[in-house]
Amino acid sequence: MEGIQIEWVESGDIFLASPATKKILSQSLKVGVLFSGGPASGGNDVLAGLYHTLKKIHPDSELIGFLGGPFGLLENRAKKIELSDIEKHQKQGGFDLLGTGRTKLETEADYAKALSAIETLKLDGLVFIGGDDTNTNAYHLATHLEKANNRCTIVGVPKTIDGDLKSAYIETSFGFDTATRVYGELIGNISKDAISSLKYTHFIRLMGRTASHIALECALMTHPNLTYISEEVLNKKLTLKEVVEEVVELLEMRAKRGKNYAVILLPEGLIEAIFEIKVLLQELSRLEAKGGDKKDLSKESLTLLQSLPEDFQRMLLFERDPHGNVQVSKIETEKLLSLMVEKRLKEKKSEVSFNPLHHFFGYEGRCATPSLFDTTYSYELGCVSALLIRDKRSSTMASVKGLAGSPSTWRMQGVPLRLLMGQEERKGRVQAVIKKSLVDLGGPVFQKFKKERENWKLEDGYLSPGPMQLSNFLITNTLKLENKNFSEIP
Amino acid sequence: MEGIQIEWVESGDIFLASPATKKILSQSLKVGVLFSGGPASGGNDVLAGLYHTLKKIHPDSELIGFLGGPFGLLENRAKKIELSDIEKHQKQGGFDLLGTGRTKLETEADYAKALSAIETLKLDGLVFIGGDDTNTNAYHLATHLEKANNRCTIVGVPKTIDGDLKSAYIETSFGFDTATRVYGELIGNISKDAISSLKYTHFIRLMGRTASHIALECALMTHPNLTYISEEVLNKKLTLKEVVEEVVELLEMRAKRGKNYAVILLPEGLIEAIFEIKVLLQELSRLEAKGGDKKDLSKESLTLLQSLPEDFQRMLLFERDPHGNVQVSKIETEKLLSLMVEKRLKEKKSEVSFNPLHHFFGYEGRCATPSLFDTTYSYELGCVSALLIRDKRSSTMASVKGLAGSPSTWRMQGVPLRLLMGQEERKGRVQAVIKKSLVDLGGPVFQKFKKERENWKLEDGYLSPGPMQLSNFLITNTLKLENKNFSEIP
Repeated sequence: MEGIQIEWVESGDIFLASPATKKILSQSLKVGVLFSGGPASGGNDVLAGLYHTLKKIHPDSELIGFLGGPFGLLENRAKKIELSDIEKHQKQGGFDLLGTGRTKLETEADYAKALSAIETLKLDGLVFIGGDDTNTNAYHLATHLEKANNRCTIVGVPKTIDGDLKSAYIETSFGFDTATRVYGELIGNISKDAISSLKYTHFIRLMGRTASHIALECALMTHPNLTYISEEVLNKKLTLKEVVEEVVELLEMRAKRGKNYAVILLPEGLIEAIFEIKVLLQELSRLEAKGGDKKDLSKESLTLLQSLPEDFQRMLLFERDPHGNVQVSKIETEKLLSLMVEKRLKEKKSEVSFNPLHHFFGYEGRCATPSLFDTTYSYELGCVSALLIRDKRSSTMASVKGLAGSPSTWRMQGVPLRLLMGQEERKGRVQAVIKKSLVDLGGPVFQKFKKERENWKLEDGYLSPGPMQLSNFLITNTLKLENKNFSEIP
Repeated sequence: MEGIQIEWVESGDIFLASPATKKILSQSLKVGVLFSGGPASGGNDVLAGLYHTLKKIHPDSELIGFLGGPFGLLENRAKKIELSDIEKHQKQGGFDLLGTGRTKLETEADYAKALSAIETLKLDGLVFIGGDDTNTNAYHLATHLEKANNRCTIVGVPKTIDGDLKSAYIETSFGFDTATRVYGELIGNISKDAISSLKYTHFIRLMGRTASHIALECALMTHPNLTYISEEVLNKKLTLKEVVEEVVELLEMRAKRGKNYAVILLPEGLIEAIFEIKVLLQELSRLEAKGGDKKDLSKESLTLLQSLPEDFQRMLLFERDPHGNVQVSKIETEKLLSLMVEKRLKEKKSEVSFNPLHHFFGYEGRCATPSLFDTTYSYELGCVSALLIRDKRSSTMASVKGLAGSPSTWRMQGVPLRLLMGQEERKGRVQAVIKKSLVDLGGPVFQKFKKERENWKLEDGYLSPGPMQLSNFLITNTLKLENKNFSEIP
């Protein structure tokens, strides 16, 4: 860890790390940290990097972990993190050392509670390990603390398996690498099963509700016969009928070649990317309370609803969450699609022999043992966070640049959170929020996929990456393709 | 591969390998091989061991692979396996080099077709790589060939991820080790997610319809809060209500300790192990054709059917396979159980916060990259098969003994198939079939599980094995506990 010899210099908007002077503080630091949102592999390594660096800055420094996510901050439920905790958890998956949660800081009362905890504990810094929502909260809290003349330094760390927290300043979030490797292994295994058993059509749904980075990366890793990317479906304004027809066409082309098996990937968000379904879901959510009357739907939505398999109709109409909302995340899109394909094949009296199998991969990849990339990267993010606090750079996100190159050439940075913010309407008012990064249909990753996917349809060029080997340093196709200096990789 | 220096000597019923004389044949061998049933990791290594040994026995020996399983034998669809095929597939998962299938050899006409293919190709030997059904077929074919004075040597290789093809003579089948490691990794990841997210109850169904070896091994690997073992459920004659009540009780005890999360494992076969459901399924299958009339059910079965969630009632009544049978393998037992638990919690006005998530792991583990144990063991099985053919020991199963010790002390054996046979009534007549090995409730594996499981209920002692590392030589808990000389492991 060379971070201790690094000084932060402001260069334009970004705080660049320059390995100039050794700067050890005469006073110790007391720093809080919390996990927020879904777990991602590497979280424990962020804590390790943070802990070790704080101790190097001053041996009496303390790291305090808030329990159960932001809720722990509001309630000041915390524990001191000891070296033994770090030794037990480093390089392991899971957020179980502290737990996590989805409580948001939204109201003045929330900020007051957070301020109170920070003051009570006399924190010099507070690190938010989370995604776009969490870092949005961190930004607003920092603004609030500044107004209140509290000098606690607020730092964000980019975490999300979805890979949608990235920008010109943040090359990737931690957790994406490991999650896609876990899913890639499973998809590879299933593809091998498809060409061994020769009779199953596998519909595999992957996590990723807004952005399809996971599905895109997994497609490049494993070369399935068909992959939906929500951003493209949205862009092309594909209807459900068109999506079904595309699968049917694929299966028929393959069957003609004697291949009654296939592997199809779809992101969790596909269901909402199909425009007419999104409208239907919105109308359903507006129907009053549970089991609202179908006849209040628009004619188009009613027709669409009635075209869906019965189980799905019932689910959409009657199975609401406690707030009366349609539970989109519970819709098994892979089954919906497969049932509609089956119906269409029957209508066409198709000769395709159709034996569908359904899979959903998500929770398996959030707490996996981190890849060597994720342990290394996350540890560095922890180091950067400690240095940002040492140097009182509040309202920043820890960042490491040059990730597609060798770790010895990585560069530590602090990015002001305001550079990552955009405007969004939420609950009727425009708010500053961290922008989610969607799949760029003109970008190098999607373009490579687009160029190659036609070959994957009929030829069975399935790749099977196998189990992640913890001593192999690899980077994702996404990171490689998005980064110009990938030729530097050792 | 020292097999070439091994001679087979008959000692009682078993052909023991004794590393005595070097015996290279003056004539080459032509050997057929086929995969049968579901894939299992290690199949390619069996081919590699077989190929290399045949070439050592005589450089002109040939290995012929039948395509698409036993059907390929009947139709004489075959290809010559080349060194390049072996090099490409060795240590990889999948049966894709040859494909597989579930065609059985049952009629006189089938045996005549098989004989015809064997005669046409002038095979000196034929290796069946498969489970209990496949090896039963191999046994009957060998008997048939003997009667027909054909001298082709028939050898079976024990393959199944289920782990139910074992006995005093066969310590384990190949594929069980890898499959349980893949599932164990995923269960471990999910358990970490449970103690990180602190709000989900995970119901995880695992492959294993007749025997629960997979669930038992995975439980010992990962220490979930609750695991059902079909053999025990059957033995205790548990009712569906009792099973539901046990889960409810667990969740309530945990909730009292502030733990609104849990991990529950169940084998695929659980549904049929619950006696009253088995009766219902049998009655339903007897109901005439599709959608048979509910009122023909017994009173008990009708009451049970009506107590099930609606979707399941509909599925059982109307969704039949092309032969009109209930599709037991399509029943999502993990969802059925979870819905019934939810209903019961509501009835009781329980304070448990219940957020169920459902998983099924099966196909992911059949074609995974084989573990070091499975590559080593499967390769040896291939070597033994070649030697059994060289020495004309027909109607035998290749076996390796002492697997819980170091591979350098493993002993090659050939076991006459008749020693593995039992009597079973199938289709109204008593037939000789290979006996399936179920979980022995008095055996050391179940006993260890029984001794420890109480501790797993409330304490969260989850273990997370992490991704399989291909250079680690490990053996399963099952093999270790069942084998006395496990202290020999290096």
